[in-house]
Amino acid sequence: MRILVLGAAGMLGRKLAQRLTAANEMEGMTVSGLSLVDIEEPERPAADFDVSASVADLTSRSAVADLVSDRPDLIFHLAAVVSGEAEDDFEKGYRVNLDGVRTLFEEIRLVGTGYRPRVVFCSSIAVFGPPLPDLIGDEQRTTPATSYGTQKAIAELLLSDYSRRGFIDGIGLRLPTICVRPGKPNQAASGFFSSIIREPLNGQEATLPVPPDVRHWFVSPRSGVGFLVHAAALDTALLGRHRCLTMPGVSATVAAQIDALRRAAGDEAVALIRHEPDETIARIVATWPGAFDARRAGALGFRAETNFDDIIRAHIEDELSGRSPS
Amino acid sequence: MRILVLGAAGMLGRKLAQRLTAANEMEGMTVSGLSLVDIEEPERPAADFDVSASVADLTSRSAVADLVSDRPDLIFHLAAVVSGEAEDDFEKGYRVNLDGVRTLFEEIRLVGTGYRPRVVFCSSIAVFGPPLPDLIGDEQRTTPATSYGTQKAIAELLLSDYSRRGFIDGIGLRLPTICVRPGKPNQAASGFFSSIIREPLNGQEATLPVPPDVRHWFVSPRSGVGFLVHAAALDTALLGRHRCLTMPGVSATVAAQIDALRRAAGDEAVALIRHEPDETIARIVATWPGAFDARRAGALGFRAETNFDDIIRAHIEDELSGRSPS
Repeated sequence: MRILVLGAAGMLGRKLAQRLTAANEMEGMTVSGLSLVDIEEPERPAADFDVSASVADLTSRSAVADLVSDRPDLIFHLAAVVSGEAEDDFEKGYRVNLDGVRTLFEEIRLVGTGYRPRVVFCSSIAVFGPPLPDLIGDEQRTTPATSYGTQKAIAELLLSDYSRRGFIDGIGLRLPTICVRPGKPNQAASGFFSSIIREPLNGQEATLPVPPDVRHWFVSPRSGVGFLVHAAALDTALLGRHRCLTMPGVSATVAAQIDALRRAAGDEAVALIRHEPDETIARIVATWPGAFDARRAGALGFRAETNFDDIIRAHIEDELSGRSPS
Repeated sequence: MRILVLGAAGMLGRKLAQRLTAANEMEGMTVSGLSLVDIEEPERPAADFDVSASVADLTSRSAVADLVSDRPDLIFHLAAVVSGEAEDDFEKGYRVNLDGVRTLFEEIRLVGTGYRPRVVFCSSIAVFGPPLPDLIGDEQRTTPATSYGTQKAIAELLLSDYSRRGFIDGIGLRLPTICVRPGKPNQAASGFFSSIIREPLNGQEATLPVPPDVRHWFVSPRSGVGFLVHAAALDTALLGRHRCLTMPGVSATVAAQIDALRRAAGDEAVALIRHEPDETIARIVATWPGAFDARRAGALGFRAETNFDDIIRAHIEDELSGRSPS
């Protein structure tokens, strides 16, 4: 099986590439080749099989046509402009998050002759917007409150229709906010959810722009990669007409995040969090969901952490070589 | 107020143009100009104000830029490839029903300098797909089962986001199936719902391709035009974040349609209906909704017929000069 990863230079893309190259099989399928593509050159992990890393503009038809002309069996689509940037730069958000996805589906369709790859697409819980129930079920309608959420909701509709028509074998995963993100903050409005854990664990200050009673929906990078790999091997006949799924996760308030940080790293770590209210971020985050009843994904075998302590533990194990500063 | 109608040569567009030119005011607003545009030349009704009729390709950016450069205050978007054709011709459906709508919104946005017209967009109940409850409420999620429904659902998302961002003042109306359509059948899979009434009222045979227990959701052309005019004048602040509305209508089975035909035109008329099962049409129609609880639109003052006899009566009055053959 040959695999193409679009958006391979991002945090989740890098971790997915590491996972895919750790063995030459994935969920029982033998991997024979891996192409890693992004707008900046992705890292190229070593593997027992052929791994390539290349730069491409995924909004260019010819570039995308080139990538799919190799007829990869499995395509992960992780490339996106994040929520804050899509709100700031209207045109760029639509160009990347809508046109980029549509171009991929179109170029696959135009390959023809029965080519119908599995496409695992990263959607987002940002497809949901207020008013929302406290616990959001699988029947919830998609009413995005941001341009990013709109673009993801449109991509989901395209994925479903292209799959129904037999052009792709798509599955869309509405990822929780990935936390704790390693590395530097990105432009996502959700960035602080990670930095209030990550920076204190590194002995550095972090800024909290929202009140501590804000509740949100989280999963570790490790579980996020697990979702992608599980989706790649899932029998999509089980999805029926509805090919987009809300992923499981942990519902936690900022206060609960901070309590978990205290348990992991003590009061000193918590003291590094400074509350500096930011109206813009608070307004965006206020439209986001807090908790899901993701039973459909659970029944299909998708698994996540069940509490925020486990999310911090995954970060300490995967990013800090298991060493907590406490 | 200057008005632009896109898709003015279609059945609903023609009736809307007649309604708009019948007086030089609409819902209390003075009409000073009307531009009627379609891919074929629309009829140009006489009026007390300036009326133009022109041909344009609404998938061409430059053509659409030209139309909005006049800064019309109110734009009706009725131009669409119908359901059957969008299923048969994948590329044309997306080009017209998705790209055409997006091009309009984009070209309005690019006018800039505070230009923010009211845009009344014809969506469809085809945004909903199975499994559906017997009575579909305003909270129902959009899970289209056709490419046409997908395109309309995407256009709704774009309309909401462009409105939220302040580029347009949009309102989307999910129209019931318009029945009884005058004139010749079009390529819509729903065409038979009208022809089994229209043809017998003209003493002609009609073909019924589905079983008589098929239930669907209808409104007369007269009420359809009424929705558009009501939406044009509505205070969109009342819509909040959700700018797309399911319109009221009449839920009727084919058997109930035929009973109403019998009451209007006798057994002779009913005898002209021939049952010729068509698998393709039956399969498409089976995914369509049968009844809605459209209370949100009702609360906002949208009004429709309440039974199928009234729908037949509207047809006889508006198309047959009030003369029923019975």
